[in-house]
Amino acid sequence: MYLRDTIAAISTPIGEGGISIIRISGPDCLSIADRIFRRSRDGGLKSHRFYYGVIFDPDSAAILDEAMVVLMRGPNSFTREDVLELHCHGGYLVVRRILALVLRQGARLADPGEFTKRAFLNGRIDLVQAEAIMDIIHSKSEMSLNLAQHQREGLLSRQLFQLKEYLLSSLAFLEAFIDFPEEDIDVSAKEHIGQNIDSSLLMLDELLSGFSEGRIIREGVSVVIAGKPNVGKSSLLNALLQEKRAIVTAIPGTTRDLIEEQMTINGLPVKLLDTAGIRESDDHVEKEGVKLSLEKLSSADLVLFVVDASSSFSAEDQSILERLSGFSFMVVKNKSDIDGSYVLPFEPELPVLSLSTHTGHGLVDLQQAIFDFFIHLPDHDSREFVAISQVRHRDALTGCRNALANFKDNLDREVNLDLLAIDLRDALDSLGAVTGETTADDVLDRIFQQFCIGK
Amino acid sequence: MYLRDTIAAISTPIGEGGISIIRISGPDCLSIADRIFRRSRDGGLKSHRFYYGVIFDPDSAAILDEAMVVLMRGPNSFTREDVLELHCHGGYLVVRRILALVLRQGARLADPGEFTKRAFLNGRIDLVQAEAIMDIIHSKSEMSLNLAQHQREGLLSRQLFQLKEYLLSSLAFLEAFIDFPEEDIDVSAKEHIGQNIDSSLLMLDELLSGFSEGRIIREGVSVVIAGKPNVGKSSLLNALLQEKRAIVTAIPGTTRDLIEEQMTINGLPVKLLDTAGIRESDDHVEKEGVKLSLEKLSSADLVLFVVDASSSFSAEDQSILERLSGFSFMVVKNKSDIDGSYVLPFEPELPVLSLSTHTGHGLVDLQQAIFDFFIHLPDHDSREFVAISQVRHRDALTGCRNALANFKDNLDREVNLDLLAIDLRDALDSLGAVTGETTADDVLDRIFQQFCIGK
Repeated sequence: MYLRDTIAAISTPIGEGGISIIRISGPDCLSIADRIFRRSRDGGLKSHRFYYGVIFDPDSAAILDEAMVVLMRGPNSFTREDVLELHCHGGYLVVRRILALVLRQGARLADPGEFTKRAFLNGRIDLVQAEAIMDIIHSKSEMSLNLAQHQREGLLSRQLFQLKEYLLSSLAFLEAFIDFPEEDIDVSAKEHIGQNIDSSLLMLDELLSGFSEGRIIREGVSVVIAGKPNVGKSSLLNALLQEKRAIVTAIPGTTRDLIEEQMTINGLPVKLLDTAGIRESDDHVEKEGVKLSLEKLSSADLVLFVVDASSSFSAEDQSILERLSGFSFMVVKNKSDIDGSYVLPFEPELPVLSLSTHTGHGLVDLQQAIFDFFIHLPDHDSREFVAISQVRHRDALTGCRNALANFKDNLDREVNLDLLAIDLRDALDSLGAVTGETTADDVLDRIFQQFCIGK
Repeated sequence: MYLRDTIAAISTPIGEGGISIIRISGPDCLSIADRIFRRSRDGGLKSHRFYYGVIFDPDSAAILDEAMVVLMRGPNSFTREDVLELHCHGGYLVVRRILALVLRQGARLADPGEFTKRAFLNGRIDLVQAEAIMDIIHSKSEMSLNLAQHQREGLLSRQLFQLKEYLLSSLAFLEAFIDFPEEDIDVSAKEHIGQNIDSSLLMLDELLSGFSEGRIIREGVSVVIAGKPNVGKSSLLNALLQEKRAIVTAIPGTTRDLIEEQMTINGLPVKLLDTAGIRESDDHVEKEGVKLSLEKLSSADLVLFVVDASSSFSAEDQSILERLSGFSFMVVKNKSDIDGSYVLPFEPELPVLSLSTHTGHGLVDLQQAIFDFFIHLPDHDSREFVAISQVRHRDALTGCRNALANFKDNLDREVNLDLLAIDLRDALDSLGAVTGETTADDVLDRIFQQFCIGK
């Protein structure tokens, strides 16, 4: 049984602002409010009313802050339990102090995502929607936000529900014949089931084919800027970010620490990493930097291999080229505003971009080339764009698809109906793992642990 | 006249969290809500009710997020105007998108502190309380938070009000005699006025004497760690912060950039700066670091001059000592766990601390010594502790005090009553500048511009 104790956490982002909210959920909401909140007029708190008053410590009688307070009686709340929100001033310390007071009154500090987990366990939302809420919060790009909002609204859940209907209907037909073993499964029933399964496979294929883009849109991509020292890697980072983030000097080896920044290209979230120039060095700190650079290459979705167009292909370039073998990389000829006759001694797979971080020429083309490398879907802006975006979803739907493919083979081979039913139930199980109906407890725990505190 | 257009801003801290709030204040609140908020049931928004629904763009019909919405009808609101709050998911992007929507509906982006400014202009709070709200939000230490809460509750305002009463009463007595010029000011009236002025001067002296601590408690102090390379400055920073913030190696000159961290010592906010070791260097980047170190010394409230107890006073130490002339500095003998016979060739004004960042020995003593250097008030923990904490307050109260001192002199010298009244009115003006009654518009603008957006 699911024990409903009372949990509390700071639900607004951490930092300085006008307002911070402490959210409390569970059976003790009202008694906690009674003990620490005092308003000017008497009377109990009614549900969904906004009250002004002060938060005070019942032990010392000290006033901790003025506050607005709202009680939302379950089930008309986010968690479907009683929820109490304390809205106080948005300082870092003042809100921690009030949270500590609430915990002293018997509430427990909420685990990450525990409010959303309760909303899920109490049937307010399914698991796909719960995950979408977190994606909305983490979203750093228009594309990922649209995708997550569609998932939260239930566009993906509705497709999964339609799939489930197909499978349940097929199972019902099948079980009708299992219950009457004297009858053979008839042709029209078999046809009906076959059509259902084909429709399901079509939907699954569509969903699975959108995964690659869905994942990229959700998680963004990691683009590493690499090259030998002093070809203008930090200048390229600054030019793409349109700000002076990395220190740029004429001295090779200026950048030692990895510099990592977020940006978006046409709505696609891009993590941009500037690395130390890769070269042999005796400098202890620089060596560490080069080591880090090489490590980062392996986690990059795309490497921008920056070369100096005003010079020529060098032994150092060659050495980096060898390290890039097996990775997707795009050659970026920087300093194209200076005359030069840089010739690549190989035929790269991806387009070669010429640009000048000095004049800004070619930067837009580079951004477009990066975008095109990752995104091929034409309709990702559409209001109805639905895609799965999590590895977990892909794996479960692949499991569902495999079970259905099995089922179809076995249906054609006229195997025992009980065995057929097992395939269908496997498929339903896999599907239920996406929406949370059949998700194992430890998987649920893992999912909600990735949420932020207070959600 | 004060034009009341409708303003909007994000009122929660910027970042990721469960909930973000967009606050709107002004006459268009209700019409904006009508256009962009849709709830499941029909009916208008009642004041101080919490409604669930979705925020949508009336142009595209796209749903931007689900949200809770509350309308607070003026004057029962923070600004005393109609206030509308939209509570949406706490993501960086989702909340900006909704803010942009609100602005497209005709609201104007609020200036920093503009909500509080309206609360002040509409008479809900005085200027001291408005400033205290901002101090609560920025507060990083228990001491500063207590002080700001007391100011917000009006403890300081009440003292200033008492002062004003003294002065107004004196002025009334005085003006009675001005109105009847045939009568001389009588002895008992003069006595009454004299007593009032003495009480006022006493209160002013007390408030002014608390300013030094008040300011330190509010603003915190800046402590710079200085010393030649490799005496353990970064280790000391890490030890005081109890975390590994700065990179520590055995290589002198590892720290180049300034490292600045906040900590509290017994509730006192301390900004700790680790600087590059000060030495002559040919390295371009290190030179820049040393230059920055020297600049930071001049803004420090206290310098920790770290020396290596395991070695002896060197020419480099001597050169730093010379640069410290005129600053408050405390000698910290680090590496005291290693045998050594470090002898200071001078008599420092402040206590010398021996410690080992390696064993942790002596760290607590150093923290206490830093605290004692700044804080002398015994009752800063008290519930009733009131102090002025802003330079603006001190300057205005000093002006008030000077006017009263003038008045007293003139009273004794039996100068013309009209001239006496001018002194008193000057004193009242200065007092009013603190609470905001007589504060010039440009000063008000400057004060509220320091506030955060959304407050």
